[in-house]
Amino acid sequence: MTTLVFGHKSPDTDSLGSAIIWAWYLNDVKGQKAEAVLLGEPNTEAAFVLKRWDLTKPSIISEVSADTPVVIVDTNNPAELPDNINDADIQAIIDHHKLVGGIETKGPINITIRPLACTATIMHNLMGPNAEKMPDWVKGVMLSCILSDTLEFRSPTTTDQDKALAEKLAGELGLDISEYASEMFAAKSDVSAFSDAELIRMDSKEYAVDGTKFRVSVLETTAPAIVLDRKASLLNSCGDVAKEDGVDHVLLFVVDILNEEATLLIPNETVKSVAEKSFGATVEGDSVVLPGIMSRKKQIIPNLKV
Amino acid sequence: MTTLVFGHKSPDTDSLGSAIIWAWYLNDVKGQKAEAVLLGEPNTEAAFVLKRWDLTKPSIISEVSADTPVVIVDTNNPAELPDNINDADIQAIIDHHKLVGGIETKGPINITIRPLACTATIMHNLMGPNAEKMPDWVKGVMLSCILSDTLEFRSPTTTDQDKALAEKLAGELGLDISEYASEMFAAKSDVSAFSDAELIRMDSKEYAVDGTKFRVSVLETTAPAIVLDRKASLLNSCGDVAKEDGVDHVLLFVVDILNEEATLLIPNETVKSVAEKSFGATVEGDSVVLPGIMSRKKQIIPNLKV
Repeated sequence: MTTLVFGHKSPDTDSLGSAIIWAWYLNDVKGQKAEAVLLGEPNTEAAFVLKRWDLTKPSIISEVSADTPVVIVDTNNPAELPDNINDADIQAIIDHHKLVGGIETKGPINITIRPLACTATIMHNLMGPNAEKMPDWVKGVMLSCILSDTLEFRSPTTTDQDKALAEKLAGELGLDISEYASEMFAAKSDVSAFSDAELIRMDSKEYAVDGTKFRVSVLETTAPAIVLDRKASLLNSCGDVAKEDGVDHVLLFVVDILNEEATLLIPNETVKSVAEKSFGATVEGDSVVLPGIMSRKKQIIPNLKV
Repeated sequence: MTTLVFGHKSPDTDSLGSAIIWAWYLNDVKGQKAEAVLLGEPNTEAAFVLKRWDLTKPSIISEVSADTPVVIVDTNNPAELPDNINDADIQAIIDHHKLVGGIETKGPINITIRPLACTATIMHNLMGPNAEKMPDWVKGVMLSCILSDTLEFRSPTTTDQDKALAEKLAGELGLDISEYASEMFAAKSDVSAFSDAELIRMDSKEYAVDGTKFRVSVLETTAPAIVLDRKASLLNSCGDVAKEDGVDHVLLFVVDILNEEATLLIPNETVKSVAEKSFGATVEGDSVVLPGIMSRKKQIIPNLKV
């Protein structure tokens, strides 16, 4: 039976890329039958990476049938996976997020979670000397994952390991990191085709703080003006999306990759108070700039206060 | 702040031993402050191992205060840990059991779960070349963990890695594996001091199958007669313990290490039916011998049917 390898819903570069990398490893190194699949349309940056390395877009699946062997990458959160994930035959989990609980396996399996910036870096470690067998396209995908998740080493989640590996891979590929990262970020910033609701849901996770449910959305961009020009209609959509998705509030952070700051939209008084309590900000008007804030995982979620 | 390293409640050799091994590693190799502690009295085999390697019994704790840095070994099950475990600052989990869900970490941490027989074997892998720094007493504890969890390589959970590591360690220590394992198993078999209820709860895990709650207890012994001579009163205690602990039934497996078989006590018709459906056994009387059954993890739990 073919093992399905997939990351979270709303796939970004690391989620798509690390599924592709691990499927390559299982197929070409371990001699197993494996296939990378997606749980939704990849974002514009991930789509660029596919094209850049001449890869076919993996199939998109909406559920897994019971007892299908699967490897879960870049998440351990059942909310970001098919509803019936615990019925699948989960063979391994490789991830770099906090353990949220909820996944249950049928027996002891391989689970590797590490506090690194990027799932692909963990995979490189797991491969050991076999990593030398990676063809250029796998190296290219791995490099893309690291540059995406570290925002070219700007994110505070970046570790020495992620950076050293990216530099090694870029050297072997003869790629200039800054140039390549700029191309990736330009692709990620090209969001004109998306509706407000799509933008809000594109890179978004739900978190509850003291019983209040938030949809915490992040838009990483090198061209924040393109997004912020739509601020008025985005502010309106925050309320609509919150209602539709059954959360109390949407927190939309527009992360300016190059200036290393985030603009948080303030659709209502509660979000205003959250911004002030969580980030020590003084809010005037319908948005607030938060200098240095780039990482949901490391800077936003751990500080959220209602 | 000192990091507390501990395994599950009702500590056996691997749970105690791997906590001691990892505390040594954090202290002497990683230069951190760490201390192995226990969540209950060690069983008689684990107590023998402490004495054999001239080690002081770690302190027994009943709760961890909020934000205490902790490393959890040999379990990922909140039911086997202090009630407030999720308030602690969980820094790492090293385990070889199925993921049950329920532990939640504050951020991304190191989690390593592997389908190996023994937590200590996983630790040896994680140490890499640093494993060469292990003094004899750490090697002795590691060897003890492997022999205990594999029942001297008899358990079907045994992997080539566990076996090869145990043989390497025994060679370096100049120990005869069979002789040493016999001493350990004799210590584990010396259960005369325990009440029936203590015997039932000594190495026991709760599992639910289709809504029916079981306490699945295993007594590994080289002298099954000592236990089975008390069968009548043990059968009575099964019902009492089930009531006291809020489960529907106790399944007590007396595992005969040397003959590689288990005797399951049959206190009532439901357990009789479970034995027949789960193990294809024909039950007559108040116990049944199950040839080849030695591992709760690999042979009992996955087959339980009501």
